[in-house]
Amino acid sequence: MFKNTLFFKPVDKELIYEYISRLNSEIKSKEIGYYELPHSEEGTILKAKELKDSFRDLENIVVLGTGGSSLGTKAIKSLLLDKDDKNLIFLENLDPIATERKLANLNFEKSIFLIISKSGTTVETISLLKVLLQRFNLSADSKEFQERFIVITDKNSPLDSFANKFNLKSFYIPHNVGGRFSVFSAAGLVPLTLAGIDSKGLLEGAKESFVFFQNEEFETIMQKAFRYAIHKQASINVLFSYGDIFADFNDWYVQLWAESLGKKDGYSRLGLTPIALIGSTDQHSFLQLLMEGPKDKTVTFLKILNWDNEMSVPKISLDFLKECDFCNELKLESLLNTQCSATMQSIIQEGITTDLIELDKLDAWHIGFLMYYYELLTSTCGLMLGINTYDQPGVEVGKRILKSILKVKK
Amino acid sequence: MFKNTLFFKPVDKELIYEYISRLNSEIKSKEIGYYELPHSEEGTILKAKELKDSFRDLENIVVLGTGGSSLGTKAIKSLLLDKDDKNLIFLENLDPIATERKLANLNFEKSIFLIISKSGTTVETISLLKVLLQRFNLSADSKEFQERFIVITDKNSPLDSFANKFNLKSFYIPHNVGGRFSVFSAAGLVPLTLAGIDSKGLLEGAKESFVFFQNEEFETIMQKAFRYAIHKQASINVLFSYGDIFADFNDWYVQLWAESLGKKDGYSRLGLTPIALIGSTDQHSFLQLLMEGPKDKTVTFLKILNWDNEMSVPKISLDFLKECDFCNELKLESLLNTQCSATMQSIIQEGITTDLIELDKLDAWHIGFLMYYYELLTSTCGLMLGINTYDQPGVEVGKRILKSILKVKK
Repeated sequence: MFKNTLFFKPVDKELIYEYISRLNSEIKSKEIGYYELPHSEEGTILKAKELKDSFRDLENIVVLGTGGSSLGTKAIKSLLLDKDDKNLIFLENLDPIATERKLANLNFEKSIFLIISKSGTTVETISLLKVLLQRFNLSADSKEFQERFIVITDKNSPLDSFANKFNLKSFYIPHNVGGRFSVFSAAGLVPLTLAGIDSKGLLEGAKESFVFFQNEEFETIMQKAFRYAIHKQASINVLFSYGDIFADFNDWYVQLWAESLGKKDGYSRLGLTPIALIGSTDQHSFLQLLMEGPKDKTVTFLKILNWDNEMSVPKISLDFLKECDFCNELKLESLLNTQCSATMQSIIQEGITTDLIELDKLDAWHIGFLMYYYELLTSTCGLMLGINTYDQPGVEVGKRILKSILKVKK
Repeated sequence: MFKNTLFFKPVDKELIYEYISRLNSEIKSKEIGYYELPHSEEGTILKAKELKDSFRDLENIVVLGTGGSSLGTKAIKSLLLDKDDKNLIFLENLDPIATERKLANLNFEKSIFLIISKSGTTVETISLLKVLLQRFNLSADSKEFQERFIVITDKNSPLDSFANKFNLKSFYIPHNVGGRFSVFSAAGLVPLTLAGIDSKGLLEGAKESFVFFQNEEFETIMQKAFRYAIHKQASINVLFSYGDIFADFNDWYVQLWAESLGKKDGYSRLGLTPIALIGSTDQHSFLQLLMEGPKDKTVTFLKILNWDNEMSVPKISLDFLKECDFCNELKLESLLNTQCSATMQSIIQEGITTDLIELDKLDAWHIGFLMYYYELLTSTCGLMLGINTYDQPGVEVGKRILKSILKVKK
């Protein structure tokens, strides 16, 4: 199961009741599409499975996509990918060295390519598509291109028109689902299903998260969001995830939070700043600042209770190093989790707003639950801050400047 | 060359003069060891080269170390490692799945293992050492252990005594060099030299950084630190590095900054909070918050001017996607750098404290220069905040709680 424990005093329920009905109105209005995804995307999974079965000898699934078109998929891949699953490769950035390293060992005959862009005209994605066309010596109307390139985009986007013209297979991201809320749409489900991940389990977990939220967890999530929204001195929300395998999940959280919750409202600038850490590694890095720096942060600890892994510290006592023997015979997972508990206690003692998320185990259901929980929390915080959680007007200026610089240059 | 341009108004020189002499006193006092490293560690490189030559068939260099014992090395590895270099593997965390993935394909006969811990009793490092002893069925007094395990630690630490007893080869981190400032000591130079990286070039760059700092760059670094230290409303320092290959460098920066600059001073809590982003990817993530959220952040843009990479966007015009054609025929590196310029302009327009670091190219010299620059900047900020930059008292509480939980449990 999923458990979220708050280590701070809840406010009077009356203060949060108003938001409950406002959130329910938002959900019922059907204007915000991600609320529907857990119930509406099973067909996408079936279609992706058929696609998978139509290929023999598939080794690599290459995602061309950035931001919301890659972060959620990457997060789930890093958490759930087994050795037996297909390899997922992400081309997200125009870094030439990283791109070269990723393409170096790619066998075209054993790969399929997903062009994922909500708007359909993401500069990085379309530019990298052209790099691939040249590298594999393909034209858009060649058979190989039509077989191995698949489009995932908004219906009627320029990329959709391109796909239609050249008979590419396509999947759609519903119009009212933003990129950063799209992990449970085709944007996430298609690559993950192709890679062999239990995407039905992801949806089931997300569905259960919604039910849970509508019932017993309602107050927890409301109290947490309220604390974040009103506690102006602590506007930095730290997520401390225990385990290296959460690194990409952390990046997904940062995007979801930063792009949703940083907004101008008339002349005032509102926003919550996400920071994501990995335990225990970052106990040797960021922890000092949490413990002794300004109290401008809240901290959420995240742990997996049962890793289902037997690796343990053997009972070996080394001369001069006996002071480390207290770890002997402990499973690595339990040592990691005890480090989490100990660090959490030390943070609570400093009077810092703290909560704990516990996942019973590491599987698709729990990760679906967790990610949907974070989406709901984001929506709730946005509502309480009084902002539009779902747009991103601030990123347009840079795009305009980019075009003007390059047009002047040419 | 290295260039740092500030896009904010400098303060009157008189305000910063005082700190110049105080910093010079700190340097001259020889109490803080990292100032000496660029001049004193060439012997370490020679010794590491001899060690490298004594092995045939070396494929993997496994670093057992966390925090300051791994982050700097990892940063340099990701930036500079060529395909021809040896593989560097880092065992840093007690995550059992990540550890299993790293050990899966390890060939003991073609590996050497570096046990790196400044204190000599880091729980993660010593526990993972025991895991390796068991996995490879070694005892501490076996020939294989003595041949393939090397210790890097503080002289007279418990780990040093262990190494002496079992005749392990050792390298020392000078007593007055803290973990997060140790990349130019044996902690970084030994693994990097073994991996085939030009560590002499790193030291040369660091040396030049120091000279530069003592001369023309002195005022730039002082003005920047002063701005950070006095500008209380903007206590979050964002580093926006353009290129995926900076991801580990970003982590190194976060540790250096957070652990050095978050300190209690009597009853008051002082600190600067680091956040590190990757461009252009995070333009699709964090940028919205920078542009429209609270003005509580400064931003440093970091770019490499000449990547020496010819990959470019081919001149292909795709039906319906012609609006992306403005990128055609541009090198990826120049497109990436223009994205950096465009985003930087949009940030400056918002009136946010901004500066730009430009590295002429990507080689050991420039990376040495850059990392030493950041160490000097950290020292200068610490001085201006009036804190002890070099200790980390806040991380001890959690360690004590960990021991007490585990002792109670057993």
